[in-house]
Amino acid sequence: MLSAVTPMPFTGAGLDRATDDRRRDPDWLAAQRAHPRARAVVADPSGLALDGDRLKLTPYRGEEPALLLGLDADGPLFAVDAGPPPGPPPAAILGVDALREAGARLAPAEGGLLAYVAALVNWHRRHPRCACCGAATTITEGGLLRICPACDAEHHPRTDPVVITLVIDGTERVLLGRNVRWPARRYSALAGFVEPGESLEEAVAREVAEESGIEVGAMRYAASQPWPFPASLMLGFFADYRAGEPRPLEGEIEDVRWYSRADILAAIHEDPGAPLDVPPRFAIARHLIDTWAGVTAGPAA
Amino acid sequence: MLSAVTPMPFTGAGLDRATDDRRRDPDWLAAQRAHPRARAVVADPSGLALDGDRLKLTPYRGEEPALLLGLDADGPLFAVDAGPPPGPPPAAILGVDALREAGARLAPAEGGLLAYVAALVNWHRRHPRCACCGAATTITEGGLLRICPACDAEHHPRTDPVVITLVIDGTERVLLGRNVRWPARRYSALAGFVEPGESLEEAVAREVAEESGIEVGAMRYAASQPWPFPASLMLGFFADYRAGEPRPLEGEIEDVRWYSRADILAAIHEDPGAPLDVPPRFAIARHLIDTWAGVTAGPAA
Repeated sequence: MLSAVTPMPFTGAGLDRATDDRRRDPDWLAAQRAHPRARAVVADPSGLALDGDRLKLTPYRGEEPALLLGLDADGPLFAVDAGPPPGPPPAAILGVDALREAGARLAPAEGGLLAYVAALVNWHRRHPRCACCGAATTITEGGLLRICPACDAEHHPRTDPVVITLVIDGTERVLLGRNVRWPARRYSALAGFVEPGESLEEAVAREVAEESGIEVGAMRYAASQPWPFPASLMLGFFADYRAGEPRPLEGEIEDVRWYSRADILAAIHEDPGAPLDVPPRFAIARHLIDTWAGVTAGPAA
Repeated sequence: MLSAVTPMPFTGAGLDRATDDRRRDPDWLAAQRAHPRARAVVADPSGLALDGDRLKLTPYRGEEPALLLGLDADGPLFAVDAGPPPGPPPAAILGVDALREAGARLAPAEGGLLAYVAALVNWHRRHPRCACCGAATTITEGGLLRICPACDAEHHPRTDPVVITLVIDGTERVLLGRNVRWPARRYSALAGFVEPGESLEEAVAREVAEESGIEVGAMRYAASQPWPFPASLMLGFFADYRAGEPRPLEGEIEDVRWYSRADILAAIHEDPGAPLDVPPRFAIARHLIDTWAGVTAGPAA
């Protein structure tokens, strides 16, 4: 299994999240907030502050709302939201552009914490109201639940599963597509959100067919990666080619085509003659591609 | 891979969901609504109507909102919501109790359609308002998107990933737990929601440790199953035992313990002397248990 060999970027926060009944105990939460070594990761309008190649931690001073990330060896760790960037809602703490920069600067071990903070702060920024009745909701359980005082509905943070599939034709060629919004020359695995009432395997087959016109056969789960911009969880699969000719989905996929092993190796090694660019190392798609090509992934940076 | 051998219950709707750009075309949607062979699955306060062992389909008469499930060989298929059961929100179309009955009566091939209808209708019932600003939102894309006329936020149906893990100690024993709310004698795999910014693998390790005190090593993804009551997607894993003694999570898990292969086989075969009951066949947990025990799963009913 891929994930057992190379930890995925944006995993590994390694905190005790205290998701058992401790979070439901107001006295316990109050003690964490008053802890002398409580620290916070601060999200402000410009994003997340870095301290060299790490997320900057500041002493926690009881700021509201108290979003308790969990406990590390030194004590409790909070996320503090000092406000979104200017502009109309829905605002996000970090978009993929900012992430690209942070991904290049952050120590790999910090990626899991970044993903956790981004997921939690993004969700609270985008969900202050009750989707059931529209009333303002109240944060509880240290930020892992919002409850509605008007209709009693409970709202947990949402995580949107996304399947990302590398279609392979044995060891010789691999199917990659180009989203219309991507940088020039970039090709990657095919991805899409899981739809209501759909298994991952159904989503893989549907998304590949929709985006590329290709029918797949057997598929194998490889690894997962949080991608909380604002709320995705990437679920990586390999799928065997069965039938069809590549045909891009109009309006979303600019091009979809087979690449040979030699093409992929050239792109991985950044040869000047490579016919494409592969995704950056912090993307799960890159790990799927490297694994297929038999290249051991390097550090995530 | 388990899912390649035995299709999971609540999968296999087999519709063309038209999740490409067709849904964004109002003319195309209008043509589906006016289609002479358009049909609907109707959710009413008592649940979903059955016609023998199948979901009852009625002619679609242009009811609002038009929730387009997709297309089958006969034409478009809609879900129509004739209202939730009496009582305060958040109301759900079908809870797990009603499902248990439907699971016993429905033809296995109908389970995927049931899951899709339940997921979509449940989401619309619970999310009429904008979580960002509280305004009433408008259904678009045939029911796969709600947009906010006040703040322009877009809201897609939510699907909550849940990891469900069978901890195994080689071929000899398996770790099962008993939720405090379950029927007497029922033991099953350990399950819990994926938290923000967490990979599936991190969620597996965290949930098993939290609920049972057990530390796991290598893990293998097995299969997935929609469980839309109201919005879950079950992601089944096997995980190897590494260390620890079983200790149930107070307040949630009544008991957690190792069972031998002989115990599990007795339960699968419903021997009078079996020391436990295993979950029903429509649950992914049962498929994990059967697969570990080397028993081929029968029909889902």
